[in-house]
Amino acid sequence: MKKEPLILITNDDGITAPGIRNLVKTVKQVSNNCLVVAPDSPQSGMGHAITMNATLRLEKTTLEGVEAYSCSGTPVDCVKIATSKVLDEKPDLIVSGINHGSNSSINVIYSGTMSAAVEGAIEGIPSIGFSLCNTSIDADFSPILPYVKQLLEQSLSHPIPQGTCLNVNFPAVGAELIRGIKVCRQANALWEEEFDERKDPSGKSYYWLTGKFVNKEQEQEDTDEWALKNNYISVVPVQFDVTAHHLIKELKDYENEKKNG
Amino acid sequence: MKKEPLILITNDDGITAPGIRNLVKTVKQVSNNCLVVAPDSPQSGMGHAITMNATLRLEKTTLEGVEAYSCSGTPVDCVKIATSKVLDEKPDLIVSGINHGSNSSINVIYSGTMSAAVEGAIEGIPSIGFSLCNTSIDADFSPILPYVKQLLEQSLSHPIPQGTCLNVNFPAVGAELIRGIKVCRQANALWEEEFDERKDPSGKSYYWLTGKFVNKEQEQEDTDEWALKNNYISVVPVQFDVTAHHLIKELKDYENEKKNG
Repeated sequence: MKKEPLILITNDDGITAPGIRNLVKTVKQVSNNCLVVAPDSPQSGMGHAITMNATLRLEKTTLEGVEAYSCSGTPVDCVKIATSKVLDEKPDLIVSGINHGSNSSINVIYSGTMSAAVEGAIEGIPSIGFSLCNTSIDADFSPILPYVKQLLEQSLSHPIPQGTCLNVNFPAVGAELIRGIKVCRQANALWEEEFDERKDPSGKSYYWLTGKFVNKEQEQEDTDEWALKNNYISVVPVQFDVTAHHLIKELKDYENEKKNG
Repeated sequence: MKKEPLILITNDDGITAPGIRNLVKTVKQVSNNCLVVAPDSPQSGMGHAITMNATLRLEKTTLEGVEAYSCSGTPVDCVKIATSKVLDEKPDLIVSGINHGSNSSINVIYSGTMSAAVEGAIEGIPSIGFSLCNTSIDADFSPILPYVKQLLEQSLSHPIPQGTCLNVNFPAVGAELIRGIKVCRQANALWEEEFDERKDPSGKSYYWLTGKFVNKEQEQEDTDEWALKNNYISVVPVQFDVTAHHLIKELKDYENEKKNG
């Protein structure tokens, strides 16, 4: 009998988050050969951070009956320690999430969920980050689980191209409103920060990061933001080669080779 | 008289690192209209992390006679708080570094230095990350400072294209060996992790992240790794659109629009 595919599960909201529990339940419908290595605390906004100057801990546990490890590090640490220390063989698929909140457009850069998937891609492992556009801890994941299962099956039967992972975002609407899956590009958007300045009891200032999301491409139908706003599930292929290849030629006047010396 | 360009200076090694001190000295040769907002502690490997669930502090100080703020957050936090809270106007240029250690090839993804520059690009500000391929705190920056100055002047006279920043890495060799500047692409490389497992005094395991760097493109002369190995200064244009555009068509079979419902 063919062995079931080995699937590694992680996230950035921490191992106790409902999102990862829902993901584990869904992965088990596709393969029982799965394992969880996820942060022991919330790691939202950690981007591609790794733990270089401190040590890591791993605690063995279970999640939905699946062998699991909570890790004291970042989502990227979780992938690194899973593939190099916990697992004896390379996983067939890494899945990250389901994140409580959107990781569409520019959020892909800040997201610990997506950075775990990108790390998988760097290591040559097909990887997917899943996010639901609802930050509530009580978010209803049930409408999207059939699509998660479908995407898991599709990515196992048609492996994601090398050097790439998928950024999958789900609109936070009822099952009857979801219009299907759309493959898109990352919208050009940004967060305009507004730091909230407050005074501590001794009168010294401290700051909370707040901000508003600004989508510069409201009307572009090929973007993930448009897809989500129109109740589609957005799938964006993401790469770790961040070279702006189209500009290499344009920047050639920066070059200056020493003629002597 | 034309106002001197406003230059924001940050880094990831922390405000006390020799690398940022050398950068400030060099920036002052180009413009006295500069300001430092840099982390109050080392932030190497922080990637594009932001501080979402904690507060930030800013302490006013000076660095090489320049107005400076040490910030309790990550390099990306420093850029965000500088542009939205500290500065009254948008800077003309953001410079990050000079990092003690390489940020070439895949290191661009993990680097706090480069994430600060990428954040600048996201905010529409021309940005450059500078790194010297020498992790020593005593590294000799003198051979590279004339090139830093040249790149600052070039980027001010021919602004870096929107949506892009520059990843500049310097070989750690004497001035006489530096062969000039080469515009390159990011080499396809990765870190192969080897977690060093140890026991704490109570017998429980803990782990140190270690690893070896593997360049998969040793012979490719258009890569940053090749340039550095051959004593060139590498300049890679970096973008924050991480969409793998070439794969969107290939993945169209993931799409399934609901016909009813």
